[in-house]
Amino acid sequence: MPTYTPATKDMDFVLHDLLKVSEQDIPGYDELDRDMTRAVIEEAGKLSANVLAPLNKSGDEEGCVLENGVVRTPAGFKDAYDQMRAGGWMGLDADPEYGGQGMPYLMNCATGEMFVSANMAFNMYQGLTHGAYSAIHVHGSEAQRATYLPNMVEGRWSGTMNLTEPHCGTDLGLIRTKAEPQDDGTYRITGQKIWISAGEHDLSENIIHLVLAKIPGGPEGTKGISLFIVPKFLVNEDGSLGVRNTVTCGGLESKMGIHGNATCVMNHDGAVGYLVGEAHKGMRAMFTMMNEARIGVGLQGFAQAAVAYENALGFARERLQGRDVTGVRNPDGPADPIIVHPDVRRNLMDQKSFVEGGRAFLYWGAMMIDRAHRSKDPAAEGLISLLTPVIKGFLTDKGFETTVLAQQTLGGSGFTREWGLEQFVRDARITMIYEGTNGIQALDLVGRKLGTDGGKHTMAFFGMIKDWCKQNAGDPAFDAAFVEPLKTASKQLQQAGTFFMQAGMKDPNAALSGSYDFLHMMGHVCLGLMWGRMARAAQDALDAGATDRAFYETKIATGRYYMARQLPMVSTHLARIESGAEPVMALDAANF
Amino acid sequence: MPTYTPATKDMDFVLHDLLKVSEQDIPGYDELDRDMTRAVIEEAGKLSANVLAPLNKSGDEEGCVLENGVVRTPAGFKDAYDQMRAGGWMGLDADPEYGGQGMPYLMNCATGEMFVSANMAFNMYQGLTHGAYSAIHVHGSEAQRATYLPNMVEGRWSGTMNLTEPHCGTDLGLIRTKAEPQDDGTYRITGQKIWISAGEHDLSENIIHLVLAKIPGGPEGTKGISLFIVPKFLVNEDGSLGVRNTVTCGGLESKMGIHGNATCVMNHDGAVGYLVGEAHKGMRAMFTMMNEARIGVGLQGFAQAAVAYENALGFARERLQGRDVTGVRNPDGPADPIIVHPDVRRNLMDQKSFVEGGRAFLYWGAMMIDRAHRSKDPAAEGLISLLTPVIKGFLTDKGFETTVLAQQTLGGSGFTREWGLEQFVRDARITMIYEGTNGIQALDLVGRKLGTDGGKHTMAFFGMIKDWCKQNAGDPAFDAAFVEPLKTASKQLQQAGTFFMQAGMKDPNAALSGSYDFLHMMGHVCLGLMWGRMARAAQDALDAGATDRAFYETKIATGRYYMARQLPMVSTHLARIESGAEPVMALDAANF
Repeated sequence: MPTYTPATKDMDFVLHDLLKVSEQDIPGYDELDRDMTRAVIEEAGKLSANVLAPLNKSGDEEGCVLENGVVRTPAGFKDAYDQMRAGGWMGLDADPEYGGQGMPYLMNCATGEMFVSANMAFNMYQGLTHGAYSAIHVHGSEAQRATYLPNMVEGRWSGTMNLTEPHCGTDLGLIRTKAEPQDDGTYRITGQKIWISAGEHDLSENIIHLVLAKIPGGPEGTKGISLFIVPKFLVNEDGSLGVRNTVTCGGLESKMGIHGNATCVMNHDGAVGYLVGEAHKGMRAMFTMMNEARIGVGLQGFAQAAVAYENALGFARERLQGRDVTGVRNPDGPADPIIVHPDVRRNLMDQKSFVEGGRAFLYWGAMMIDRAHRSKDPAAEGLISLLTPVIKGFLTDKGFETTVLAQQTLGGSGFTREWGLEQFVRDARITMIYEGTNGIQALDLVGRKLGTDGGKHTMAFFGMIKDWCKQNAGDPAFDAAFVEPLKTASKQLQQAGTFFMQAGMKDPNAALSGSYDFLHMMGHVCLGLMWGRMARAAQDALDAGATDRAFYETKIATGRYYMARQLPMVSTHLARIESGAEPVMALDAANF
Repeated sequence: MPTYTPATKDMDFVLHDLLKVSEQDIPGYDELDRDMTRAVIEEAGKLSANVLAPLNKSGDEEGCVLENGVVRTPAGFKDAYDQMRAGGWMGLDADPEYGGQGMPYLMNCATGEMFVSANMAFNMYQGLTHGAYSAIHVHGSEAQRATYLPNMVEGRWSGTMNLTEPHCGTDLGLIRTKAEPQDDGTYRITGQKIWISAGEHDLSENIIHLVLAKIPGGPEGTKGISLFIVPKFLVNEDGSLGVRNTVTCGGLESKMGIHGNATCVMNHDGAVGYLVGEAHKGMRAMFTMMNEARIGVGLQGFAQAAVAYENALGFARERLQGRDVTGVRNPDGPADPIIVHPDVRRNLMDQKSFVEGGRAFLYWGAMMIDRAHRSKDPAAEGLISLLTPVIKGFLTDKGFETTVLAQQTLGGSGFTREWGLEQFVRDARITMIYEGTNGIQALDLVGRKLGTDGGKHTMAFFGMIKDWCKQNAGDPAFDAAFVEPLKTASKQLQQAGTFFMQAGMKDPNAALSGSYDFLHMMGHVCLGLMWGRMARAAQDALDAGATDRAFYETKIATGRYYMARQLPMVSTHLARIESGAEPVMALDAANF
């Protein structure tokens, strides 16, 4: 059985040494002192390790079952869900007006990391609810907020996103689901939605579907899409549950992983729906959910890698095989633990440096979101909007890769179900696909975000790196290990951007052919920046006489590894980008 | 349901345009004219597409079942196995003296590609038999050959390799299985072996296990290992089956993929065993099987990628989503096929250029094996010995990566069981692990093979590339696309080798920390060479007035893609290698 132990010390380091959260001038952050965040993390950690993690493997093996329209989640899920509700975890960062605890989104990510590491499939039920909550909170009417939010914040009701249809996922302009207006101001929704995570299950009393549909007579394409609330049970005036709505689960998807989560075909047969916001402006509201979901998926990427790494490390310390070439380390045993071997270390350091760098990037991004929302800071809003596709795409691509590396550490044991690594790999695989495939993230980044507001946020991003390099230059060893590699990588990233502008003027394919590489370059530069900052924070702690020297020295050494062995990927991505569209687009579709 | 269509035209191109097999002065190659190889490929292709491929998904879903010591393979496997036997495919390259057809090993690889693409789990039953056949053929006594080989060549009996034990896989010196000599010259084998592919099943009448064990009193470690034949049923003097031996299947491994193949715990309880070759020289005989198995696993790597690519391509041509940014391509449809989008093409071209390059590399390697064995050519023997870990490690790492890319092409559909891509990914994953993890391949390459015979074969490898570059220089366009990139990559590879020699003198970890990157560099250089050769062959065909111009032009364009977008990885690997052991080895094991 795989283990899960929350990385509380590393989380503490990111929150306080790196981000210095309690010193930030963001409303609510003044409360985030070390004692407070530790208490929250410790409690969520206990729930994760003791309740959620033990259900991960059994949930995978048992899966969800559809019988007579009812979906049964795996044994133990309902009880765990109730414990999560009782702890108030679902409304941690929700609006106190609707019963939430009003904590920063950052704390939701910190606890979310542990919930995901412990049991990704389980945590999706509440993750989807959170997205639906946000959409109603931002775009719903006062009456809608009052009707739905308190129960969703409390977890009594859950939520979903109904976007995809059999013939369209990425290209939502093709949606066929219809919303016929009724005399009473409601709509009748008709159409089939597929791949609806948590679409039907036995954990909550009601399920609030947020559904994209077209009102007949509206504009073509995405400009004619509206967003609707379609509750599983209609809600009476007094807030009690009314009649069963005609939205039903028509089937469960059989899939590679996340078996504990019900992936549903949802049939809307004239279901009663309530318009959210304005007619035909559904895409905007949808993106409120989607952007949040993308950060959440990025979190899944590194959180699955984190638990996979923990198990790889445990194995590498225990498994005895071969001898250290530089001298026997375990003379009393038949062989040395495999962690002595350089190639096993290479593998583990790749994992460690990604997991810790990814955590820093994700938490930093969450802080930017808090700054954007709580401080109404447009610069933070612009920066996180630019980097959302990077957080989603890079952290999930590398997260999956890292999970595969962790599986590799275990050799043959990694391929067996018993050790659990193969499940982490199967579960992590979906993160590169859902909420917009990573190719779509790259398109969003290069085709839209880079140029938003005349490229202002892109310039701010490069400015942030330049400033950091300037402020941290001077110590030759630190310069060589951190400042110079980051400067080089950042310059190469700018060079790629310049190539896009120049070549893309003549041929849009020249930019789009390199979009995926650009996303990865930018991800590496972001993690490079995070490692530079973490190394600096660790050095500061050491200089200030921190007693746990090994911990901080390890941070610096792990950062050096990332800069020396991961950041050089940037130059290969640049070479690919600069080879332009020709190699990519050369073939006629018939000649593949 | 996934499709499988043998790539007969591409295989023909590699055999005749690239390798010019019928012109080679290797015994038996003179028979390999186009008509003959086409006939063989066509027949094996029919069996693959019509019989094996339809059993791939059902075999995965049904898996193998152990009941009362008997393993039942999935429905249809026995019938397919019998058809394979009837076609004589199992003895295609076996010694005619024992009933084989005596064809070159190359043809075994060409047919094997199709069998693996169609149904990897199924094909392992005969693949293991082939390895056991080879070990007995090379190292067995005349009586052993006569007793076992005819039935194995015919497929009436199958074979296995019994190496791994619970506490040792890589480090075989730790083996505990004992072989007690008996007065009659036989041995009694006692011990538990795990992860024994095809260890027990219902396809053949007898199973011939080749078992590593230690004769008490022999030398410590790998020098005290001997190889034994342990038949499931003992064989009577007249060749008929005798008593059931005390080797039994104690359990089936529950695993990520290759569910159609039985991965067994094998308990030897004083089982009767027959020494193969000399006592204590078992490792040498084991490597006969192992080297063959490694080539076979490399073949699995690209063959799984090949069928995954076929399905990704089919999807990309059919799925309508979004519009070509440079102009609508499918005005009568609601959207364009996704193959118009640059990032989808980037993904497909990565797949295509690997699959075709991998096929060329594998077939070329098979020809080197034939040259080594049939022409007794020590240079070919040295070259293929050097490159065996590269074929195994690189083709499986990139094969898995490519299968994941293909899955990504399908978006959400790739994650569902229905489309079959997720099975290809799960099946491909094992190839990076078994027959020596890819980390072990890298260790073998850098720690052993590079320096074999004073580095003679390594120098011959670089000489081969240099010669090709010299012979093919002159045409500026060809030079820029192929010769120069290959020259640069080859120089960087040499630079890495020089770094190993210099830094490795002081610290062996300096070389071992970069071994994995070196294996990948070398793999890229090999595929670069193959693409250079294929582009040259295609150009020659065009110059000679070939009618199917699109086919040959596509080869050149695909090669240009590989050189422009894959080969640059070599420089990142070099940068990692040159960062040395320090970043990799910095941490104390306790501080990870």
